[in-house]
Amino acid sequence: MPMVIIEGPKADVETKRELVKRITEVIREVYKVHHVSVIIHENETENVGSDGELLSDIIARRRG
Amino acid sequence: MPMVIIEGPKADVETKRELVKRITEVIREVYKVHHVSVIIHENETENVGSDGELLSDIIARRRG
Amino acid sequence: MPMVIIEGPKADVETKRELVKRITEVIREVYKVHHVSVIIHENETENVGSDGELLSDIIARRRG
Amino acid sequence: MPMVIIEGPKADVETKRELVKRITEVIREVYKVHHVSVIIHENETENVGSDGELLSDIIARRRG
Amino acid sequence: MPMVIIEGPKADVETKRELVKRITEVIREVYKVHHVSVIIHENETENVGSDGELLSDIIARRRG
Amino acid sequence: MPMVIIEGPKADVETKRELVKRITEVIREVYKVHHVSVIIHENETENVGSDGELLSDIIARRRG
Repeated sequence: MPMVIIEGPKADVETKRELVKRITEVIREVYKVHHVSVIIHENETENVGSDGELLSDIIARRRG
Repeated sequence: MPMVIIEGPKADVETKRELVKRITEVIREVYKVHHVSVIIHENETENVGSDGELLSDIIARRRG
Repeated sequence: MPMVIIEGPKADVETKRELVKRITEVIREVYKVHHVSVIIHENETENVGSDGELLSDIIARRRG
Repeated sequence: MPMVIIEGPKADVETKRELVKRITEVIREVYKVHHVSVIIHENETENVGSDGELLSDIIARRRG
Repeated sequence: MPMVIIEGPKADVETKRELVKRITEVIREVYKVHHVSVIIHENETENVGSDGELLSDIIARRRG
Repeated sequence: MPMVIIEGPKADVETKRELVKRITEVIREVYKVHHVSVIIHENETENVGSDGELLSDIIARRRG
């Protein structure tokens, strides 16, 4: 412990490497702990809902 | 907040669109809030266990 | 399956009873399934962050 | 990794100690790994829904 | 209830079948319940962070 | 999206305020997004297992 679960978008390995490094630093400094586990769930935009709409539909409409 | 995480089966985009729309309506009406986030995790039937068996095995046996 | 995890606010039992009833109806109708499990996690406002601020701080400022 | 999140009922410390010990043994043997983390979320029966009803209501009705 | 969510590695169906069978046995014996649901999330090693590093990077370095 | 769920220890409000602020900054910078939600689950040490033991037991033994 602690463990961090991130429900995020698709990302490349560089992005995920930076994410794990920096999230771990924050958790360590704020909680004063050493061991930190992170799980990144990459979600398709059609699997995310924001205020009643699929994120994929919101993005498509904005690009309209 | 609130956030809803759904551990469900594979589904097409129409199903997920309706799911997000209707789940959001329920959350808004019951909790009297506006902002609602939904994450849909689509799980293969071989990644779901029910009472000790894989869902994929249960389905295969029923079709038997 | 499916299972629904709701990260919501504190609520009384009537609210949670209605929530489980209605969420289950939606899941059943949209996914065409019978068995539905729901877990409600009630979160203190000081355990929720929205855009960088604690929800408890946002509420306190609005009441300001 | 792996991490196991258990959404279970209220339990005493002896129960949780046995749970962590045995779940860890299974994860180690099945996945051939050493490090295993477990989080136990203890849920009130009025925060759990089964097929549209609160678990607290189901229990009360059975006790009649 | 109870429900168990496993954040694990990629695995074949035999492994997952054994995992569900044995995790369910433990949950039943420890909690004295019958119904048990399990969800297995299979995570790529580049989606898991351990102490600030991606698991994929840790593995690559060990193989060095 | 994104949402971050932190399974951490008990903490005071100052710690949680800093945690939400800094986690949000990292998520925004790494993913190039604006909206970030965070949920902090505070876990008793007897609800956390590490390599087969309760965290509460590990701590008690170290204090020996």
